[in-house]
Amino acid sequence: MAEEQLSFKFKMEAKEPRIEPGGGGITRGVSVREFPASKNLAGVSMHLDPGAMRELHWHANAAEWAYVVKGAVRTTTIDPEGNTYIDLFYPGDVWYFPRGYGHVLQCVGEEQCHFILIFDNGDFSEDHTFSVTDFLSSVPPAIAAQSLGISVEDVDKLPKKEVYFAQGKVPSVGSGLAVARKETTLVSPHRYPLAAQQPILVPGGGTQRIVSKKEFPIATTITGAIFEIEPGGLRELHWHPNADEWSYFIQGHAEMGVFLAEHNFVVDTYEAGDIGYVPMGAGHYIKNIGTEKMIVLLGFNSPFYEAIDLSTWLSGNPKDLLEGNFGVGADLISRFPTESKLLIPKEND
Amino acid sequence: MAEEQLSFKFKMEAKEPRIEPGGGGITRGVSVREFPASKNLAGVSMHLDPGAMRELHWHANAAEWAYVVKGAVRTTTIDPEGNTYIDLFYPGDVWYFPRGYGHVLQCVGEEQCHFILIFDNGDFSEDHTFSVTDFLSSVPPAIAAQSLGISVEDVDKLPKKEVYFAQGKVPSVGSGLAVARKETTLVSPHRYPLAAQQPILVPGGGTQRIVSKKEFPIATTITGAIFEIEPGGLRELHWHPNADEWSYFIQGHAEMGVFLAEHNFVVDTYEAGDIGYVPMGAGHYIKNIGTEKMIVLLGFNSPFYEAIDLSTWLSGNPKDLLEGNFGVGADLISRFPTESKLLIPKEND
Amino acid sequence: MAEEQLSFKFKMEAKEPRIEPGGGGITRGVSVREFPASKNLAGVSMHLDPGAMRELHWHANAAEWAYVVKGAVRTTTIDPEGNTYIDLFYPGDVWYFPRGYGHVLQCVGEEQCHFILIFDNGDFSEDHTFSVTDFLSSVPPAIAAQSLGISVEDVDKLPKKEVYFAQGKVPSVGSGLAVARKETTLVSPHRYPLAAQQPILVPGGGTQRIVSKKEFPIATTITGAIFEIEPGGLRELHWHPNADEWSYFIQGHAEMGVFLAEHNFVVDTYEAGDIGYVPMGAGHYIKNIGTEKMIVLLGFNSPFYEAIDLSTWLSGNPKDLLEGNFGVGADLISRFPTESKLLIPKEND
Repeated sequence: MAEEQLSFKFKMEAKEPRIEPGGGGITRGVSVREFPASKNLAGVSMHLDPGAMRELHWHANAAEWAYVVKGAVRTTTIDPEGNTYIDLFYPGDVWYFPRGYGHVLQCVGEEQCHFILIFDNGDFSEDHTFSVTDFLSSVPPAIAAQSLGISVEDVDKLPKKEVYFAQGKVPSVGSGLAVARKETTLVSPHRYPLAAQQPILVPGGGTQRIVSKKEFPIATTITGAIFEIEPGGLRELHWHPNADEWSYFIQGHAEMGVFLAEHNFVVDTYEAGDIGYVPMGAGHYIKNIGTEKMIVLLGFNSPFYEAIDLSTWLSGNPKDLLEGNFGVGADLISRFPTESKLLIPKEND
Repeated sequence: MAEEQLSFKFKMEAKEPRIEPGGGGITRGVSVREFPASKNLAGVSMHLDPGAMRELHWHANAAEWAYVVKGAVRTTTIDPEGNTYIDLFYPGDVWYFPRGYGHVLQCVGEEQCHFILIFDNGDFSEDHTFSVTDFLSSVPPAIAAQSLGISVEDVDKLPKKEVYFAQGKVPSVGSGLAVARKETTLVSPHRYPLAAQQPILVPGGGTQRIVSKKEFPIATTITGAIFEIEPGGLRELHWHPNADEWSYFIQGHAEMGVFLAEHNFVVDTYEAGDIGYVPMGAGHYIKNIGTEKMIVLLGFNSPFYEAIDLSTWLSGNPKDLLEGNFGVGADLISRFPTESKLLIPKEND
Repeated sequence: MAEEQLSFKFKMEAKEPRIEPGGGGITRGVSVREFPASKNLAGVSMHLDPGAMRELHWHANAAEWAYVVKGAVRTTTIDPEGNTYIDLFYPGDVWYFPRGYGHVLQCVGEEQCHFILIFDNGDFSEDHTFSVTDFLSSVPPAIAAQSLGISVEDVDKLPKKEVYFAQGKVPSVGSGLAVARKETTLVSPHRYPLAAQQPILVPGGGTQRIVSKKEFPIATTITGAIFEIEPGGLRELHWHPNADEWSYFIQGHAEMGVFLAEHNFVVDTYEAGDIGYVPMGAGHYIKNIGTEKMIVLLGFNSPFYEAIDLSTWLSGNPKDLLEGNFGVGADLISRFPTESKLLIPKEND
């Protein structure tokens, strides 16, 4: 693989952030330009102050998948049929906005908000992000006036350039924190509460939660996952046949190794705020090398989650074939895995 | 966007045409080579004399969508199941031939024909267009003879090179202007009468007619539209989340502005015979700046029509959010659109 | 077409093979790097000794379609749901493994095996092929041990580098030559007996057998075909609207001509062991120029088979239109094909 010289690690939270003179928030975006390994997925880490918003905007070349780490976020989005959706997100909740859908993100609680955005295009950038104030201040004032049905004098009172972060107020209950519904819902078209999902749990190893198009139908281009791994635990050797993997380390210390065929292997250590990348099909593992629980957010550029784990693969093969393949005797092969493992607890030593 | 230096206008009907020594027709093709903005769609304007035909041919890398401006056109096409379709088209009718389907276009009335072809590949060219006489004269005569089941002497009477425009006769009724059917049909597999569609009509603004895969199932890669806009009328600020837009101005005078994010904005004026282009996701508008009705044909490289209009977007958002986003008071926000507009009549001034 | 200077022929079986010090098999792979015309499909010809195996491996960027020429082959494969499939293949049988599925190929009979692999990616290479011994010897021994649930001492007994060809034994009946089933099956998820299919037969011309997604649902990216053509017989002038064609000549002598528009035409002769390529949409024919039956294996990068034959196209068009198109009289046009031909027997001369 041509990637053998690549690094699969980038210290995202150490990147110089974008801030605006008016404050309101800070954002750090990492695309294939800063992180060459990340060819097909890009990410943003954004913080917003209470009341502040990332103004009304859309992305021309990417869908947006998000995971809330901290705070309460109100979003509105519009689809091409003209429907507006207003949703409210808490830590552990996920949103998805298809490519080109207009949306806004506002921090609506008493505490600062922090969320991770994943885009299904490694080339994602501000060049392909369109803000409403930038749009209205770029067209001739007479056109903006006719389009909005207001006077040219009113247009003159609107911002003369892109606002980007706008400072609003923490909205009152009457503002529409979410679309009024007749019944409560767990999942809405643009919202999935991932942290509330019952996980696959391996005692001593950790937990896995996954949200794909199967659970969250609008997410047709990105599958997400949260792994919590116990100290010493290992997400076993595996690969993904259908997707690249983008990772954001939320907590703890990890070692991730990436195998690129022909004996090319890259290993690195990761801590909270670092991001990683694994190309489609490349073998890899993630191990918790710290003393506390390790939590990592994963994004895959595919509607469905697919993984092939080494334990599952080997346990399905005839023993005589494995003896021939590895050139070892029946005794050693008899100690090979006989069932799927997924997460492997720390060795008892 | 890297397109900021691009022009989104090309004077198609001013381009030197392709003509053949034998006459019969003239054609002007514009692809990404002449018009760099048009990355994903290409177009051709073709005129045929009565009886003349663009001979039997196929396109290796593009499907063909067409709109008849003038005259009566007979087409035949073959699909990979071996079915032949013969159809007859009048002004306002649309055809669609999937990539690689063999077809012929013949002007069958008393007047000259004019039609606009749109291809779902910006790199469309004659290099990827295969004519039957070119095929038969390129292979060894013995192969052509065996393939056709005729003698080598007969092959020698066939054209020795590509005919391109062939001069036939205006066919008689017995020739098969359309496949004989038991019942009349409005829409056939390859034919949709767009001008006969009941439009969306905005009084004082104009009309919109759209044909996508929904109305015309075979058109899986191109959606088309006709907008008629009254003098002073505005197709409001909007964008298309799922497609580039290729436009051919049929009548009148227009201004089209294209917003490319980060305050990049390109505006131009268009008259009959000009073509325009808007990249996927870019904000834009079209205004009739003349004194007569303006008519524009649009092609989108997508099976379905999607647009987000500024009025629809803004009217769906909570007012306190808009106040924060624009940094203006409730009074001005109260004058913002409260419903979808689409086409906006001339300002009363 | 830019391909006019290209050759559409490559002498695959004359290529220097890959062999391993331990023997077991030989393999010849040809991708776009050696054979520039083959942009979207690549191929491998592999021979395995009895008992030998191409060890457990997966391909990161391509699905694998195969046709067994000689011998009996056992495969095992795993899908992302964790199911293992064990299948047995004889000459004329086809397998398909989707991109990224782990698999192994073992020669299980008394005679040497020979099979042709087709990959749906012209850029296929060993760089994107991952072997299990390469994987386990590339990661740190402690990780391999934890992942397999064995000791580091046991890991030390495993191969230290990629095995590639492993020498196993001809397996006994008890080894699992195929998954035990309650009923016999003709087609299983990964296996289709192409040579057992009832062909389309043209007396004096030859036979055509095709396997696409329609007959073999898992083969979503490759369609295969076997043509047997009698001496002097011609696969008539035709093209494929939806796919490139990769061909492996199994027996006999052929002439294949490829028409690339604008009078560009390339013709070559082929014998057993040669491969050919035809770009999507390009006109072509294959003629048996030898004295014995000619057999060719074809692979298309598409889930479905589509072809438009000249005889079918011409026979569906009105005669007055053909007269105009070719500029010849009704007499000659009356001798043009009036039905589909497909395979045309040798001329009686």
